[in-house]
Amino acid sequence: MNENSAPHGGQPDDTPELRGLYAGFEQLSVMPLWTQIGDLMPHHPKPRAVPHVWRWSELYPLAQKAGELVPVGRGGERRALGLGNPGLGGNAHISPTLWAAIQYLGPRETAPEHRHSQNAFRFVVEGEGVWTVVNGDPVRMSRGDFLLTPGWNFHGHHNASDHPMAWIDGLDIPFSFQNDVGFFEFGADRVTDYATPDLSRSERLWCHPGLRPLSGLSNTVSSPIGAYRWVHTDRALNDQLLLEEEGHPATLAEGHAAIRYVNPTTGGDVMPTIRAEFHRLRIGTKTQKRREVGSSVFQVFEGRGEATLGDATHRLEKGDLFVIPSWVPWSIGAETQLDLFRFSDAPIMERLHFARTAIGADAE
Amino acid sequence: MNENSAPHGGQPDDTPELRGLYAGFEQLSVMPLWTQIGDLMPHHPKPRAVPHVWRWSELYPLAQKAGELVPVGRGGERRALGLGNPGLGGNAHISPTLWAAIQYLGPRETAPEHRHSQNAFRFVVEGEGVWTVVNGDPVRMSRGDFLLTPGWNFHGHHNASDHPMAWIDGLDIPFSFQNDVGFFEFGADRVTDYATPDLSRSERLWCHPGLRPLSGLSNTVSSPIGAYRWVHTDRALNDQLLLEEEGHPATLAEGHAAIRYVNPTTGGDVMPTIRAEFHRLRIGTKTQKRREVGSSVFQVFEGRGEATLGDATHRLEKGDLFVIPSWVPWSIGAETQLDLFRFSDAPIMERLHFARTAIGADAE
Amino acid sequence: MNENSAPHGGQPDDTPELRGLYAGFEQLSVMPLWTQIGDLMPHHPKPRAVPHVWRWSELYPLAQKAGELVPVGRGGERRALGLGNPGLGGNAHISPTLWAAIQYLGPRETAPEHRHSQNAFRFVVEGEGVWTVVNGDPVRMSRGDFLLTPGWNFHGHHNASDHPMAWIDGLDIPFSFQNDVGFFEFGADRVTDYATPDLSRSERLWCHPGLRPLSGLSNTVSSPIGAYRWVHTDRALNDQLLLEEEGHPATLAEGHAAIRYVNPTTGGDVMPTIRAEFHRLRIGTKTQKRREVGSSVFQVFEGRGEATLGDATHRLEKGDLFVIPSWVPWSIGAETQLDLFRFSDAPIMERLHFARTAIGADAE
Amino acid sequence: MNENSAPHGGQPDDTPELRGLYAGFEQLSVMPLWTQIGDLMPHHPKPRAVPHVWRWSELYPLAQKAGELVPVGRGGERRALGLGNPGLGGNAHISPTLWAAIQYLGPRETAPEHRHSQNAFRFVVEGEGVWTVVNGDPVRMSRGDFLLTPGWNFHGHHNASDHPMAWIDGLDIPFSFQNDVGFFEFGADRVTDYATPDLSRSERLWCHPGLRPLSGLSNTVSSPIGAYRWVHTDRALNDQLLLEEEGHPATLAEGHAAIRYVNPTTGGDVMPTIRAEFHRLRIGTKTQKRREVGSSVFQVFEGRGEATLGDATHRLEKGDLFVIPSWVPWSIGAETQLDLFRFSDAPIMERLHFARTAIGADAE
Repeated sequence: MNENSAPHGGQPDDTPELRGLYAGFEQLSVMPLWTQIGDLMPHHPKPRAVPHVWRWSELYPLAQKAGELVPVGRGGERRALGLGNPGLGGNAHISPTLWAAIQYLGPRETAPEHRHSQNAFRFVVEGEGVWTVVNGDPVRMSRGDFLLTPGWNFHGHHNASDHPMAWIDGLDIPFSFQNDVGFFEFGADRVTDYATPDLSRSERLWCHPGLRPLSGLSNTVSSPIGAYRWVHTDRALNDQLLLEEEGHPATLAEGHAAIRYVNPTTGGDVMPTIRAEFHRLRIGTKTQKRREVGSSVFQVFEGRGEATLGDATHRLEKGDLFVIPSWVPWSIGAETQLDLFRFSDAPIMERLHFARTAIGADAE
Repeated sequence: MNENSAPHGGQPDDTPELRGLYAGFEQLSVMPLWTQIGDLMPHHPKPRAVPHVWRWSELYPLAQKAGELVPVGRGGERRALGLGNPGLGGNAHISPTLWAAIQYLGPRETAPEHRHSQNAFRFVVEGEGVWTVVNGDPVRMSRGDFLLTPGWNFHGHHNASDHPMAWIDGLDIPFSFQNDVGFFEFGADRVTDYATPDLSRSERLWCHPGLRPLSGLSNTVSSPIGAYRWVHTDRALNDQLLLEEEGHPATLAEGHAAIRYVNPTTGGDVMPTIRAEFHRLRIGTKTQKRREVGSSVFQVFEGRGEATLGDATHRLEKGDLFVIPSWVPWSIGAETQLDLFRFSDAPIMERLHFARTAIGADAE
Repeated sequence: MNENSAPHGGQPDDTPELRGLYAGFEQLSVMPLWTQIGDLMPHHPKPRAVPHVWRWSELYPLAQKAGELVPVGRGGERRALGLGNPGLGGNAHISPTLWAAIQYLGPRETAPEHRHSQNAFRFVVEGEGVWTVVNGDPVRMSRGDFLLTPGWNFHGHHNASDHPMAWIDGLDIPFSFQNDVGFFEFGADRVTDYATPDLSRSERLWCHPGLRPLSGLSNTVSSPIGAYRWVHTDRALNDQLLLEEEGHPATLAEGHAAIRYVNPTTGGDVMPTIRAEFHRLRIGTKTQKRREVGSSVFQVFEGRGEATLGDATHRLEKGDLFVIPSWVPWSIGAETQLDLFRFSDAPIMERLHFARTAIGADAE
Repeated sequence: MNENSAPHGGQPDDTPELRGLYAGFEQLSVMPLWTQIGDLMPHHPKPRAVPHVWRWSELYPLAQKAGELVPVGRGGERRALGLGNPGLGGNAHISPTLWAAIQYLGPRETAPEHRHSQNAFRFVVEGEGVWTVVNGDPVRMSRGDFLLTPGWNFHGHHNASDHPMAWIDGLDIPFSFQNDVGFFEFGADRVTDYATPDLSRSERLWCHPGLRPLSGLSNTVSSPIGAYRWVHTDRALNDQLLLEEEGHPATLAEGHAAIRYVNPTTGGDVMPTIRAEFHRLRIGTKTQKRREVGSSVFQVFEGRGEATLGDATHRLEKGDLFVIPSWVPWSIGAETQLDLFRFSDAPIMERLHFARTAIGADAE
């Protein structure tokens, strides 16, 4: 690794003439590279975003309180609490590209339908009773499920139960906002179908392993699957650990099972900007130190452990969320079997060929 | 559609000089295009292969008899009866590209391990008790299952039961033979693992819908799935028909459910030369007349119906196999609910951009 | 097009309890979506960046003056004046993704070698005498040439003449900065090869139309061509206009010839984040009004005309630069034959599936 | 390398019962695998096609004689002499996949227009004066030029000069014939445009290195370039040898320059079934022994040398053609500077994942 900052050579002497030149620059909306290059082009990524942990035990009560005080409906659209990276100064960007929020829906409430070019998913750390309606297809939300509402699909939510429910939303709002790519349209004020089927139509069509409907031979930009169910995720992870025990290659590393949620039409990421994965660490497993270009968010689904993010180590409990900005070294250790949901902007980095990873000694 | 044969214009007068010229051609291994073009380049495909139906009720007894008289072992390798297209003159090519055979294994028999660049699959119309061992991974074979042994994977079979078992093999042997692309290697004389697990390791790693192991992020030329189970195929087809009844798009055509077996790493065909599908027609459904470039083989899995192949109509019973050569018009009608397994050389046609399809009036 | 801002429905009443809740949010680094959604997720892109024109006649004298006052060398690295979008508040981002600068090199000066993950190109509106050395390959810079230094290639510049020379640099610095993807490394303080060949080695290997060296069969992320020469660009555009006159399809629209600079290993864009094109409008031609997701920068290479950017119309002279932020309607008219160089972030938009275009009436 | 033939183990005893079984097989169009497997699935490709050399000095006089005796016109379509591989028994297939012919057109003659799904090219070893008209675009043919008429493009030829002209045609006729994929349609009896421009419209649109017309942004299955000119090929090869002399990587191997003709929209092969290349060996250069899956045809364009094909070595003179069947070891040596045109079925082998190559010791 090189030094982080460029030497200050090559700088002109501060003279009245130079100040005159700089004044001329300002008048024409021109800025010199030579005074800014160290900040603009650092020797490795130096994110303003910082690693940070949000405690579920603190977040959930806030969401409950918002449930009492804040109505949900057209205009505000969603009762969602965005996690704002402390380094990114006052807006709800958890990283330069990603948005993560807790959404809360009271008994019998409906969040109205809309669509937007931003890609979105939901992940359910606990609870049940809500259906997300995606282009008219009602999708049950239950603990451990991962649900998709890719860009430009109409969607609303309704709670069909007598209990409140909370979950996390992940989107590419900061990326869209920063790069001016977003469109948004209102839909119905109520969801278009209040049915509460166990399986969505998308699952009945697409969730048969290795089988593709002949009515769906055109590849789609995002996955056509509305919900990835916990029963499958849990079984896949368990099978990897059992195969490892039986002596066969299956896990990502010893004691570390992991799956990626994918688009069955391509085998690739579920959406063009967001990668989602689920990781299971056996008790006592500790991951190698890594640095990656791009940012990631984890949520603890079950178990206890600790995360080392940069120089600090944080305890992890169920529901806790944390963000790892670009190129910050990190590792995770499991005190019990530890289940973690992860999402990141890796598809952006890979599609634009900025991805880099350093592991172990290279990540020091 | 143009006339099938070119006019005989442009032909030289038959003179002694011309005969002298033609003799000179022969001496130099040269042939005139102008006398052959009508055959070499017909106005549309004019296959020597013919449509043909093989009856399971006739084939199976022959396989049984072979089970009595023919040993299975190193050298002969497999007790397989290849279906030879009557138009292709004496070798076991069911079409210019495809091989289809019944393979038969007696109680406790083993077919030795080998590998070859030819791509192979098995489909089980009835029975159980055999395991195929693919690169050391034992894969159970049961009714309705579709099993893969893609090119250059070691594989052998053993019957762990006290009953004989038969199934069909599909390969690209004729294509490989014709184009001189095949390699072959002997493996162990016995299979390397006589375990009889319910699920193969490949399924435990890969058959969780929409989930990809992080240990398997590199795309593979052929599917890593060893067996596509009947329980999934049946459910997928059933769900399509139910969705159709509920008013939602899901089937290929009215009353016609269909799935393609795919490689989960790409969403594409299971092997580079062979496409495999399963079709279910509701009672009374008749497919539109079609012509397709390339050849297909069907096997009736369950039910009764009829197939119109070219000008002739054939009754279909369980287990019957039929081949449709390139550009021969065909349609299928269901007298009961009709379940059909299909395989074809469509990936060859599509990858080389020779694929064409005519449907309905265009196929007349 | 919908209304630009969401209605203010769905907002909670301002009560002490609500204020308490909001204070709790702040404490936990959490922000409500319902108060921000109109800004975060507008009905169509609402860029902070504004359309803006920089005059070559004003920029060039500033660059000259910088040439007198500011040394070039290690640390400052380049004597480059970045064009700062007036809407983006004080840094030299011409758009959220793109950087555009005038770089100036005095007689016999050398800009030292370095490399960075940011992708860069140069375009020469006038002058000659400088060579860019890319990974040791000296590349001549002359009027009309388009030169590449894709990410992570070492490069430096030296002026082999007795005259100063200026050109424009284009990079994805803002994108890299915003998303924390950049790496940077110093190279030699002097360029590694002071030779001044007419053609670079990259051109001698890669610039033979339709011919690919067998030593270069692996596709590359960015184009291996170091310089796209004006003689080819000019001839290609001229041929398009002649073909149009002869009655054949060739131009993009009537009177509008255009080429895209491409990577010969793929036929796609020259670099993963930047698209570059050259447009020639016949005298009197006016382009249709367009809106596009993503931002573009144009430089007038030759001729006179006008650009309508949003509601304002600007006169265009040789060397003038202008930026079109995302979704701002624009059109260009030619008073003489008008030659324009263009670059944009379109590859980002397309690879991430955010691209949209509206033309003519749809762009109103 | 394994033994070429399988052992004859596993064969049943010849008994009356077995003969009865085999008779039953015949009746049902069924063939046993166990008696055929050694032929059907050899241990490595064992082509029936043989290596063979055709002498230009012998072929050309035959073509001239055909010019006197055989008219050219509708029905016979082309005065083409197909080279028939002596191992492939009596038809004009130079290999299982490829067709190679000398075509001859007398002064002022026209070969009528037609189109077919077979992919075709022409290569000109000497002469000039003929124009090929492809979809109405007249394409000049001159020494060293490589011309395309991809599948389903109308094309005819006319000789605008007072001298005869001969060239070679390459097509995928055997592949199309064997696999029943071909369609054919007559076009105009005369060519649709008798203009004799120096450059075709396709070249004026597509032959500017690294520049793609904005009117041609959709990728095409085959190259849109009608002619690849000798001036470019020669210069590209020369530049590679010069770069090698200057100490830079550029050639395929020492003294061995080579280019592949490519589709500029993709960087890939010119047509989906045929690869075309041009090789230049410095005097004294000898290529390493190679074996490749798939078949190749070479024509000597200029110079003298020798080709070792399997066990035999053949002298090579200008215009000589030779074929290398699948997996036959070969090498070429140059007695003078040696220029060779090559075409092959490599795209078929690569797209279907049958490609293999052995070099040097591995090819023994």
